[in-house]
Amino acid sequence: MEFERLLKQVEFIHEIDKVKYIFRKTRLFNSPRHENDAEHSWHLAIMALLLAEHANEPVDVLKVVKMLLIHDVVEIDAGDIFLYDSVVAHTNTEAEQKAAERIFGLLPTEQANEYIAIWQEFEDSETPEAKFARAMDRLEPLLQNVSNGGGTWKEFSVDYGKVVEKKSVIKNGSETLWAFAKQLIEESVEKGILHKKT
Amino acid sequence: MEFERLLKQVEFIHEIDKVKYIFRKTRLFNSPRHENDAEHSWHLAIMALLLAEHANEPVDVLKVVKMLLIHDVVEIDAGDIFLYDSVVAHTNTEAEQKAAERIFGLLPTEQANEYIAIWQEFEDSETPEAKFARAMDRLEPLLQNVSNGGGTWKEFSVDYGKVVEKKSVIKNGSETLWAFAKQLIEESVEKGILHKKT
Ligand SMILES: [Ca+2]
Repeated sequence: MEFERLLKQVEFIHEIDKVKYIFRKTRLFNSPRHENDAEHSWHLAIMALLLAEHANEPVDVLKVVKMLLIHDVVEIDAGDIFLYDSVVAHTNTEAEQKAAERIFGLLPTEQANEYIAIWQEFEDSETPEAKFARAMDRLEPLLQNVSNGGGTWKEFSVDYGKVVEKKSVIKNGSETLWAFAKQLIEESVEKGILHKKT
Repeated sequence: MEFERLLKQVEFIHEIDKVKYIFRKTRLFNSPRHENDAEHSWHLAIMALLLAEHANEPVDVLKVVKMLLIHDVVEIDAGDIFLYDSVVAHTNTEAEQKAAERIFGLLPTEQANEYIAIWQEFEDSETPEAKFARAMDRLEPLLQNVSNGGGTWKEFSVDYGKVVEKKSVIKNGSETLWAFAKQLIEESVEKGILHKKT
């Protein structure tokens, strides 16, 4: 059948529409509306295109963009895990592994394997591409929280120490972006939208 | 100042958050909610990654993805123009040109020039990358309308002839995808969710 491959690809394209219904804790830059995973992934991909020059090591930008566009697809089955959630560990739960296999498994076999591997690479955070992609994923909500008066930090009483701990992952992808992020975090304390533990 | 370039990039990243508030006529695959431009661009970029093998000519996939991620940014100032709007011409109005200059103009000069050129290339639809990107932009709402019982065709009384006319642009990017799209259009007539003019 002529369209055999294409029908599998279209089934995947159809399935990932559900990413548009998964809402994050984070709110948009200038509005109280929660951001969904599709918008989030779009924003990160553009950030990667524009900021790749600041990466610690040269990165394959197309690979970074692929990672970022698909990194949250597993949440269709596994749900969004909040970065500051202290009960559920964020990385690579069994549920996410199963989700990756089911969802990317809709694609023709070699494409399925390619995207499962790319997703896994992002989760492992070891290659220059994964480290830089991860930096984008940590930087965007920081920019959002700074922009909307504290955002999830305020809403969930996240303190300075916790923010520095979680955001320092940016350093692995880009020392420059981390220096910038650190400055934003310090300014947030000065502005009173982020607090040190007393 | 160390962060001079970066501050310009961050200003652009901040500005394009507004793309998440621009709603299209088209509704999501399985819900009555309208799709916003950020979600739409995310979906098209993934489609391009997966379907590039069906392009008529080999394409630079990274360039196609760049085009698709930023193609609707101008709508922050110029607004969304509905494909089947017969009064307002869709392509490259003066308002869109001005919008491109203002919004991409937030970036460091050579990045601004790069993205204005990429946006212009998409609008001109002459290179293999632009033709294929355009095919993605026409295919996604077709899949949506088929999926949700006629969608904008029903809502705005768009007939078969008009759909074939507008969607045949897919052919310039991919004969295979056009053959597939044409089949979906014919099936939609059989299913009674699209009508021929009587
Ligand atoms: Ca997530």
